[in-house]
Amino acid sequence: MSRAIAIIGGTGPQGMGLALRWARAGETVILGSRDAARAQQAAQKIRERIVSAQVQVSGLENSAALAATDLLVLTVPFEGAAALLKQLKPAFRPGSVLIDATVPLAASVGGRASRTLGVWQGSAVQQTAELVPKGVSVVAAFQDVSAEVLDSEDDVDGDVIVCSDDPRATQIAIELVAKIPRIRAIDGGKLENARIVEQITALLIGLNIRHGGHAGLRITRLPESAYRSDWSAK
Amino acid sequence: MSRAIAIIGGTGPQGMGLALRWARAGETVILGSRDAARAQQAAQKIRERIVSAQVQVSGLENSAALAATDLLVLTVPFEGAAALLKQLKPAFRPGSVLIDATVPLAASVGGRASRTLGVWQGSAVQQTAELVPKGVSVVAAFQDVSAEVLDSEDDVDGDVIVCSDDPRATQIAIELVAKIPRIRAIDGGKLENARIVEQITALLIGLNIRHGGHAGLRITRLPESAYRSDWSAK
Repeated sequence: MSRAIAIIGGTGPQGMGLALRWARAGETVILGSRDAARAQQAAQKIRERIVSAQVQVSGLENSAALAATDLLVLTVPFEGAAALLKQLKPAFRPGSVLIDATVPLAASVGGRASRTLGVWQGSAVQQTAELVPKGVSVVAAFQDVSAEVLDSEDDVDGDVIVCSDDPRATQIAIELVAKIPRIRAIDGGKLENARIVEQITALLIGLNIRHGGHAGLRITRLPESAYRSDWSAK
Repeated sequence: MSRAIAIIGGTGPQGMGLALRWARAGETVILGSRDAARAQQAAQKIRERIVSAQVQVSGLENSAALAATDLLVLTVPFEGAAALLKQLKPAFRPGSVLIDATVPLAASVGGRASRTLGVWQGSAVQQTAELVPKGVSVVAAFQDVSAEVLDSEDDVDGDVIVCSDDPRATQIAIELVAKIPRIRAIDGGKLENARIVEQITALLIGLNIRHGGHAGLRITRLPESAYRSDWSAK
């Protein structure tokens, strides 16, 4: 049986969207929130949206969610990420893998969502890597997938570039990404490369504002072996 | 009759590739180089690669190429761009449009091609905009198209994001981009947005190194009106 996935700060559109897609794919999902009651209500909403009787979605307060599994996803706005990680630090299981989808949009400080902030460490996910306990592996993914699309019934139609300094974490994240229909996972190499992936989000948001739509990203012309996608094989 | 396109520093793979594609599309192309003889040899090579008798490709020294037309493309390595622009400043025709494909790869100073340098102005193209005479409009395009693919017989299979502060320059660049088969042009808004487009090149080079291939970029899920492509209509 596969491990449960805990989505920390999971009651926003991005967390709800990922929960919906993974629950549909048969994964066990725990939605985390500051408020356990809110997490439970969000989990109930996900269950109502899925027809199958086999849906495994529950809601817990964030630190209880962290304690329940070692497979974690962070979907909080950048402005709240550092404080939350500091607060949750004691709750991490050793050896956990944390998939971080955070993007340092300038909107975090009242600026534009089509611009990013400079983060001292190079990127939001590198800041995260500094704040988690030693032995927790951080991996960047899902920055360039529209939260609104994830949280809808639409096809995602995008590639997710996965970056980490821990090959084991990259592998786990790639497998998890590939469980979502119409998404391909691509190994993007080291964690530092996420600084570019995070900025692409701001570019896509700018394109959305200019043209309308919910832009995503496809990488063309890599060999087939570079793309990991479970659904296309079915 | 359409204006000639002068490709400044046009004898490298990117300039040759663009010349090849535009000459095939029936455009008049002038290859510019520091050395007029080298430019003429490069033009001869392009003519030999195209079967049609109607090919209009010539070679000129860079400043003569600038003086010959007001539709310009800059395809020089970042490390040589600023000095060249300063030297060529007196040769620009007033009202010229300059399409800049430059990317500030760290390889310019002996670093990795999968990393970028920080440019004070925000991006290589914003530096270019500071260095050209007043009244010359600068537009960013083609950063994320592999020079090797352009300079081959392969399909490009990518989108080009066009950024400029001058809507007229954006329009001209979009039309020129769209003349190349299997490329779509997308209006990417202001010139400042090119800082992200330039960085994507470093990400794509990193993916090429990791996976093999000549990666390109497609933007998904924008409305049809956002994509400009002449070839798909034919």
